[in-house]
Amino acid sequence: MDSAVETDGSGEYVPWSEVTPDAARRLLIAAVDAFAERGYHATTTRDIAQRAGMSPAALYIHYKTKEELLHRISRVGHLKALELLSTAADGPGTAADRLDAAVRSFVRWHAAHHTTARVVQYELDALGPEHRTEIVALRRRSDAAVRRILADGVAAGEFDVPDLPGTTLAVLSLCIDVARWFSLTGNRTPDEVGTLYADLVLRMVGAPAARDQK
Amino acid sequence: MDSAVETDGSGEYVPWSEVTPDAARRLLIAAVDAFAERGYHATTTRDIAQRAGMSPAALYIHYKTKEELLHRISRVGHLKALELLSTAADGPGTAADRLDAAVRSFVRWHAAHHTTARVVQYELDALGPEHRTEIVALRRRSDAAVRRILADGVAAGEFDVPDLPGTTLAVLSLCIDVARWFSLTGNRTPDEVGTLYADLVLRMVGAPAARDQK
Repeated sequence: MDSAVETDGSGEYVPWSEVTPDAARRLLIAAVDAFAERGYHATTTRDIAQRAGMSPAALYIHYKTKEELLHRISRVGHLKALELLSTAADGPGTAADRLDAAVRSFVRWHAAHHTTARVVQYELDALGPEHRTEIVALRRRSDAAVRRILADGVAAGEFDVPDLPGTTLAVLSLCIDVARWFSLTGNRTPDEVGTLYADLVLRMVGAPAARDQK
Repeated sequence: MDSAVETDGSGEYVPWSEVTPDAARRLLIAAVDAFAERGYHATTTRDIAQRAGMSPAALYIHYKTKEELLHRISRVGHLKALELLSTAADGPGTAADRLDAAVRSFVRWHAAHHTTARVVQYELDALGPEHRTEIVALRRRSDAAVRRILADGVAAGEFDVPDLPGTTLAVLSLCIDVARWFSLTGNRTPDEVGTLYADLVLRMVGAPAARDQK
């Protein structure tokens, strides 16, 4: 598992470019790989430094604790998720168009960055209380972006959604679990999974576009 | 997290009753809790023995390695999943009735036994090659049970499923991810999640029952 060579849905190279300097970025990528492979609790800062080809002392210049590395990874991942979902929610078109865009981009990210996404999604309990509160707030904003699209679709008569919070949860859950099963050696690309899932989600909300495809 | 007090959807007490003798069962329950809390790789057999109130020597009477404990947990979990899905697939009624039953029972299990289910779903990579092959074969049989229901529904003109393997994967994925987000302190019971998800999945396959609810 090498998150350094993960790409986005379009094949674009996305090497945690928002993290600088280079040494801090290399350490973050090493931490993602170590956490994904052995779990947060089985990984030491020494393991992470070694994977990055650096000394433990060099690591401490950039990150004071292992939890700080996890928080940084979690924050980057959650900010990206919120950006993708907010962009779709605020975008042009009908509620169906916006839901389609949200699901496609969110699925593509979880498929292309499945190693990072697993760490982001499965190690939440290891965050310290303050960091956890911050991340939970970001998750609530992501949930709200999707719920807003569904509510708009219901108000416009486009969607039929008897349980708005439950359906919001299910849509996000379906997309997030792509990180668990997606494999670069499998027979579907991130784009193909995005297309399939956008159709399935439009069906879940009873969008006419999905029904008319029959 | 105490898997010893997990219950099934009906509130029935399910203490790994198929595992005997009592000491072996206590060790298995302790292993589930330890793996769920700290991850497989961060857990030692000493940790597990201690949680079960036993000595490491007593543990070795029942399990030779930590991997044997994980394999036993994974096998019990996967056999249960296969049993639930096969029972639904072989059951009476229309394809929609059988899909409804499959989703309800699978979701209820992942909600009620979310601690066990997380270990079963997230620690597959830690199994030895032989055990992994065995578990992958069980997973294929579970997939096949769901795919059979979808194919029957398409053949009977009940369902509209353009991508049969992809939709099978998505249905199982949606249900499995319940283990990640479900919390006993949340505001939905395993039964309520099962009801919501059965409706959403019937919509995904274009079942008339779901469409007619509009």
